[in-house]
Amino acid sequence: MIRAVVWNENVHEQTNEAVAAIYPDGIHNCIAQALDADTGIASTTATLQEAENGLSAARIDQTDVLLWWGHAAHGEVADVVVDRVADAVWGGMGLIILHSAHFSKIFKRLMGTPCNLTWREAGERERIWVTARGHPIARGLPEHFDLESEEMYGEPFAVPEPLETVFISWFQGGEVFRSGLTYRRGAGRIFYFRPGHETCPTYHDENIRRVLVNAVHWANPAAARITNVHYAPSRDVSDALEPISERGPKLHAPGEEGLR
Amino acid sequence: MIRAVVWNENVHEQTNEAVAAIYPDGIHNCIAQALDADTGIASTTATLQEAENGLSAARIDQTDVLLWWGHAAHGEVADVVVDRVADAVWGGMGLIILHSAHFSKIFKRLMGTPCNLTWREAGERERIWVTARGHPIARGLPEHFDLESEEMYGEPFAVPEPLETVFISWFQGGEVFRSGLTYRRGAGRIFYFRPGHETCPTYHDENIRRVLVNAVHWANPAAARITNVHYAPSRDVSDALEPISERGPKLHAPGEEGLR
Amino acid sequence: MIRAVVWNENVHEQTNEAVAAIYPDGIHNCIAQALDADTGIASTTATLQEAENGLSAARIDQTDVLLWWGHAAHGEVADVVVDRVADAVWGGMGLIILHSAHFSKIFKRLMGTPCNLTWREAGERERIWVTARGHPIARGLPEHFDLESEEMYGEPFAVPEPLETVFISWFQGGEVFRSGLTYRRGAGRIFYFRPGHETCPTYHDENIRRVLVNAVHWANPAAARITNVHYAPSRDVSDALEPISERGPKLHAPGEEGLR
Amino acid sequence: MIRAVVWNENVHEQTNEAVAAIYPDGIHNCIAQALDADTGIASTTATLQEAENGLSAARIDQTDVLLWWGHAAHGEVADVVVDRVADAVWGGMGLIILHSAHFSKIFKRLMGTPCNLTWREAGERERIWVTARGHPIARGLPEHFDLESEEMYGEPFAVPEPLETVFISWFQGGEVFRSGLTYRRGAGRIFYFRPGHETCPTYHDENIRRVLVNAVHWANPAAARITNVHYAPSRDVSDALEPISERGPKLHAPGEEGLR
Repeated sequence: MIRAVVWNENVHEQTNEAVAAIYPDGIHNCIAQALDADTGIASTTATLQEAENGLSAARIDQTDVLLWWGHAAHGEVADVVVDRVADAVWGGMGLIILHSAHFSKIFKRLMGTPCNLTWREAGERERIWVTARGHPIARGLPEHFDLESEEMYGEPFAVPEPLETVFISWFQGGEVFRSGLTYRRGAGRIFYFRPGHETCPTYHDENIRRVLVNAVHWANPAAARITNVHYAPSRDVSDALEPISERGPKLHAPGEEGLR
Repeated sequence: MIRAVVWNENVHEQTNEAVAAIYPDGIHNCIAQALDADTGIASTTATLQEAENGLSAARIDQTDVLLWWGHAAHGEVADVVVDRVADAVWGGMGLIILHSAHFSKIFKRLMGTPCNLTWREAGERERIWVTARGHPIARGLPEHFDLESEEMYGEPFAVPEPLETVFISWFQGGEVFRSGLTYRRGAGRIFYFRPGHETCPTYHDENIRRVLVNAVHWANPAAARITNVHYAPSRDVSDALEPISERGPKLHAPGEEGLR
Repeated sequence: MIRAVVWNENVHEQTNEAVAAIYPDGIHNCIAQALDADTGIASTTATLQEAENGLSAARIDQTDVLLWWGHAAHGEVADVVVDRVADAVWGGMGLIILHSAHFSKIFKRLMGTPCNLTWREAGERERIWVTARGHPIARGLPEHFDLESEEMYGEPFAVPEPLETVFISWFQGGEVFRSGLTYRRGAGRIFYFRPGHETCPTYHDENIRRVLVNAVHWANPAAARITNVHYAPSRDVSDALEPISERGPKLHAPGEEGLR
Repeated sequence: MIRAVVWNENVHEQTNEAVAAIYPDGIHNCIAQALDADTGIASTTATLQEAENGLSAARIDQTDVLLWWGHAAHGEVADVVVDRVADAVWGGMGLIILHSAHFSKIFKRLMGTPCNLTWREAGERERIWVTARGHPIARGLPEHFDLESEEMYGEPFAVPEPLETVFISWFQGGEVFRSGLTYRRGAGRIFYFRPGHETCPTYHDENIRRVLVNAVHWANPAAARITNVHYAPSRDVSDALEPISERGPKLHAPGEEGLR
């Protein structure tokens, strides 16, 4: 059973009537329900307003895949939480970054790029095309599907070249966007998935919900969490795998820590 | 003429006799001389101890390719300088990260990973193999070449999968390491090159000097610096490339800034 | 249950006493036993000498993952069988290419490169390093493990840049080699795994057997086989997803087949 | 001076009035003129109808970058010519594949995939977006540009994941397509560029011509042609880089050729 945690900043659901009407229990609960429809996933939720933003060390230790939705309050996420999530991803935890979380601290940290894009809020039609036939994240999808009303995101999208481009979006107003991108950072798999503007009923869409379920399965770690993700050990000459003799000048005394 | 800047923390040259003996003018000047032997490159140097760590905004604006060597003083580089270098790379400046700079702030920032590895300071033999025949960075090199005495770096090296693996090192003590890796972050090209322990005469080696020259040419930006690397503009409905009509609820008033 | 088929040319087991002594039932049966130790895999075997090289269309239709070992008789594999296997991979079948099968028709076809390398048959030590911590194919492995006696393969290895480099080998005689490489071609996943010289007991090694099991799980298709892998349909203007009007001159009459 | 050869099957220019009106001297001469406007390129042309399809061994030896346009006569290109071009690419020659040459023998050979796609000939609007800001192939281009009338190509495009996705096209009828893709095969760089339907004036467009010039510069080899692209030498034990002793059984007598 994959332990998924759906994190949401949960702001616009409290402050905007249109959003509250679409997601009366919050985006996080809507997504959690989508995931729980899969018999292999057990999901819970976490929000910005909880202690430690809902992501204590103990909680993260028990998380196989973390889904992240944020928009208005990226700056309010505690840096210590961002560090903790980054460490977990490097150790193997899966991470799924949703829509406006392209500007979240954690995504920018893991990408090493500005993650900016162009955008337009006009309720226009988005058509999502599968560009990686047979990819696990596209399982069960048609070759393309429409979201009748979505926010536009346009290229250029300032992210690193992905391992694989799974989806590309067509927008009614004339733009394109790489909507489904995979990465690995350390032992962890990362999937960015574009749709999900909070004034649109996107997370109620059956194709979108299928992508989320597929992505959780894809991002589920293959092995136990690696905990020494910053470990940079010195190998003793006397323990070398092949016999060697020490030569030349050295900076470090035997057994000394390396420099950082 | 490519304007290269060789940055060096310049610490061990001042504090360690063995290092000072090998690089009496500092690693930076040794590398700058190697680059200047190429008629297409004009190099200057910058060090940690200078104002703004030698990398003022005006200086960075005039830099096509920045080479970075650091080991003992990563933490002393000002964060504002790291931000400035990152912005420049995203805008197109080339960046060449040397040896122990795998733990520099700027490399970790751009990679989004811990960048850790294993190491051994035993003056052992390193053999560097070209794995990408015909790559511009390998121009003029033999299929492999030796450094008789180097520090060992061993896998796993916690970096993202590169665009291309150009070199892999064999070590006498039994390890391997991906020694030449290419990345793009924003408009800028990045090359990580492993050799260069300060107690070894590595930057005097002709093959190593050739790699540095090649890498500067490879990393030289193709176009003028992009300056709006964080720009995330809203596209007005009335200016849409294809005529669309606004529909549905909206978060933003017309012309409003996006959320970050 | 994953249906794995282990294909072997089965030549040296019949003609070379040293090989026969190590693999009295053939390399294929040794590997099949390794796979069957995993409760999620049901394996069978196929050999060059069987009708249609053991790979009839019906057989391929029932195969989730095909493992391929060949060395002396690449040229004897029927081209129609190679075409069939390529179509199946493009449609989603997993393919695991073992050792000297780097020169098999099917691997060269799918890579689009010569797939050459350097080699030495000296029974030297090979040490395999995991370069992609947390990758499903490395599950349960130590950071490195040794094969005391193997054939050497050396870089440069003329293959395309992989999706991920999972393993790199160190050889006693001074070479390195990218030993575990992943690719996707069409909907199918491909894994190249270097070890397995027939005069060495490599496929009896527990770490090697674990890699093979892991690789079968990794390469197992996520969805049903795609059968129209060469389909290049014309979309009628009247069926366009967005209303458009035909304009300008045309090469093709309505409904006409495209050119190939 | 980069020696570019523009190859064209030159069929529809002879048989279709609309095509002849747009390209009275053939697509090849139109493209050659675009390249010659760059002071760093010297271009010539070659066509299917010439001896050896215009690509003798001597000619290929003198070619730095080959551009390839074909549509109606892929099957008429001699296999020996295809082999020759493949060898040259593996040895370092640049190759630029244009539009309907996605189905050329040489592209399918080098990709290892079917290279199929969907299409519609309706003279619709195509908008090309730069997805890799700062890439040399996008030098001097705006963020997007339009071709008012083009054939549509739609995803999924059955090619391997590229090194970098440089352009993505938006089509008026609702499709998207990865229009600019880079690969390396052996020492050679390959660029696929989508636009160029023969009934449209695409190769007269200034932005398109700029892309072609940029691509020729990008694909220009960094070093002399490698000629031993199929070489797979045995390394003698006595010549090993590190001293080793031969152990165990062997298949090959000393100095014997390897198996293929």
